[in-house]
Amino acid sequence: MPQPILTMTTDFGLSDHYVGAMKGVILGICPQAQIVDITHEIGAYQITEGAFAIAQAYRCFPKGTVHVVVVDPGVGTARRPILMEAAGQRFIAPDNGVLAMIYAREKSKIRVISNDRYFHKPVSTTFHGRDIFSPVGAHVAAGVSPAKIGKLIDDYLRPAFQNPVQTGKRRWNGQVLKVDRFGNMVTNFEAADFPDLSRRTFLFRLGPHEVGALARNYADTGPGELFAIVGSSGYYEISMNQASAAKATGCASGSPVELSIW
Amino acid sequence: MPQPILTMTTDFGLSDHYVGAMKGVILGICPQAQIVDITHEIGAYQITEGAFAIAQAYRCFPKGTVHVVVVDPGVGTARRPILMEAAGQRFIAPDNGVLAMIYAREKSKIRVISNDRYFHKPVSTTFHGRDIFSPVGAHVAAGVSPAKIGKLIDDYLRPAFQNPVQTGKRRWNGQVLKVDRFGNMVTNFEAADFPDLSRRTFLFRLGPHEVGALARNYADTGPGELFAIVGSSGYYEISMNQASAAKATGCASGSPVELSIW
Amino acid sequence: MPQPILTMTTDFGLSDHYVGAMKGVILGICPQAQIVDITHEIGAYQITEGAFAIAQAYRCFPKGTVHVVVVDPGVGTARRPILMEAAGQRFIAPDNGVLAMIYAREKSKIRVISNDRYFHKPVSTTFHGRDIFSPVGAHVAAGVSPAKIGKLIDDYLRPAFQNPVQTGKRRWNGQVLKVDRFGNMVTNFEAADFPDLSRRTFLFRLGPHEVGALARNYADTGPGELFAIVGSSGYYEISMNQASAAKATGCASGSPVELSIW
Repeated sequence: MPQPILTMTTDFGLSDHYVGAMKGVILGICPQAQIVDITHEIGAYQITEGAFAIAQAYRCFPKGTVHVVVVDPGVGTARRPILMEAAGQRFIAPDNGVLAMIYAREKSKIRVISNDRYFHKPVSTTFHGRDIFSPVGAHVAAGVSPAKIGKLIDDYLRPAFQNPVQTGKRRWNGQVLKVDRFGNMVTNFEAADFPDLSRRTFLFRLGPHEVGALARNYADTGPGELFAIVGSSGYYEISMNQASAAKATGCASGSPVELSIW
Repeated sequence: MPQPILTMTTDFGLSDHYVGAMKGVILGICPQAQIVDITHEIGAYQITEGAFAIAQAYRCFPKGTVHVVVVDPGVGTARRPILMEAAGQRFIAPDNGVLAMIYAREKSKIRVISNDRYFHKPVSTTFHGRDIFSPVGAHVAAGVSPAKIGKLIDDYLRPAFQNPVQTGKRRWNGQVLKVDRFGNMVTNFEAADFPDLSRRTFLFRLGPHEVGALARNYADTGPGELFAIVGSSGYYEISMNQASAAKATGCASGSPVELSIW
Repeated sequence: MPQPILTMTTDFGLSDHYVGAMKGVILGICPQAQIVDITHEIGAYQITEGAFAIAQAYRCFPKGTVHVVVVDPGVGTARRPILMEAAGQRFIAPDNGVLAMIYAREKSKIRVISNDRYFHKPVSTTFHGRDIFSPVGAHVAAGVSPAKIGKLIDDYLRPAFQNPVQTGKRRWNGQVLKVDRFGNMVTNFEAADFPDLSRRTFLFRLGPHEVGALARNYADTGPGELFAIVGSSGYYEISMNQASAAKATGCASGSPVELSIW
């Protein structure tokens, strides 16, 4: 039998003992788990950033994978922990929208996590990653049926992650979703929604910067030139060849991006 | 049979090849090991910080776990490598106090590591993480009896990690043990020693800052307000709701904290 | 049967979802893989730094290990992906010299990776780490014969990693290969090539700084004193006791180092 895979996505960073403590709890419950870190470097309290990371990563994992996602500014308050089944996988997270980019796309069943038999006791008010999300994830990975964790709900949070807004016949306002390590700026313009830029005249505007070139790969263009490219995530990205487009434009996550197509 | 769990806590960081090299040595000896990183981002040479991290994390791991702890400014000198058995787990570290927060609390047996049959040869003078601590940890995880590693000692280092010092009838001087990623400041005031703050008037003083509110969770208070809270580690922490208390007060690890109770 | 070991060395960093996505692909193909991170903090596009990290780390891994190395500024261009067999291990990387410090030293067989049956489809133009290197590595770890991946080649890139250049009877010009987390500067003077410094008068010159002392371990010398030491990698390093030699000298990776021996 293959080992159950359990992934972790958090904003806990790697310099404290928090992630290690969670893994100890997980292995105490499900010693055969194959634990995979998606990232622990989500910006502190940045729910949108966490939502993007897990929505990108889960598609690469096999059916049956359990994902524990903890970006949880409301820890200890009335916000609920939830368990989602979608795409043949299971997701454990706070009900604060961090799973919303997945349930906006996939057929899903969502439960409130209420059965404290699967919690790590005593439950602290400040570290539900260790006391609720990890142990529930580990029990599910070890074979506990989602139905035993809690009841189905349909009043989970549905945040409006900004899609580009059409502001003219051929003009849209969008934004930078994410700047990656290389300074590539992932926009919220999905290639599937704007498929034919390669055959059209277009312009992305980021403040004073105008980007009208579409590249097929990062090395297609000269040094210092900004270009658009369909990134590995399926969104248009604004990039530079071996340099940081974010640094060159002064843009960051959330910066406005305007697209015009002629 | 479950895989043996071996954890690692070091100040090696993640940008060099050092941690990867240690894992190669471990898997060469104990291929079935389940390796878990507690953290590799202990500040360079910061023994107290390493002591705090492993003392927090080990409690979440199941019996039988082997912990390799390498914060080792004296590598290559006469300081001894030690093997500790405590709480049904095993710990491998230099004898420099990095395990002291555990053996101050748990019944323990401590041995000097002397049997070089379990070392990675040739033993360098600068990387005992690879040549001594990891291979000994891997052999123990694979089933080698601690008695084969070396003799029991009782003259291991006992550093005086500062406990709060009473300076008046109802006044104590303590300090910040650790600032976490979120800017929460873990003090060395243990909740078990000062249990009744919720029913008393009290004041934590950090320089000019006074903290007299006790919260049950991070969201209990308004923005910008400092409060005390019993953290997941069992110590009082000074925190702010979704903001860094350390930045707000200018405090760091080691900063003095005074507690008055009326 | 032991789990196959698969290591990863990249410049992707740990704050994006990229590394997690690669691990998902790997586990989908080879669920029993034991995945080990060497480092993901290679400087963006720094092929030499990646070459050094994997050349140091592989020697600690057992035969049969598969290493996936992705420092790939030319992703999506005509640069070829390659599979190398050397030292009883397998290495998957772009043909840009990132494996050169290994094939300069070991007997090796190198193949171009061409059989797209082992790719993750559709293959993007920007993320071959996910679409080519990881899945090919996972298939090889799962037992696919290298011969099925592609044909042997001998026109792979052979970059001239600088060895020290002799400039006088007893004088060589070399450089700093790498500065580690502790500020130790690894030079490209190999101890095996300059073995007898302990019995000779010598001087390393780094700009205005002169280093004529050889230490056996980091604590051998007084505070603030620069010294040379044979590091764990087998190269001479310029170090300071519990302080950063790089900060003290203002040197960085690539800085010139002159050695004179009398």
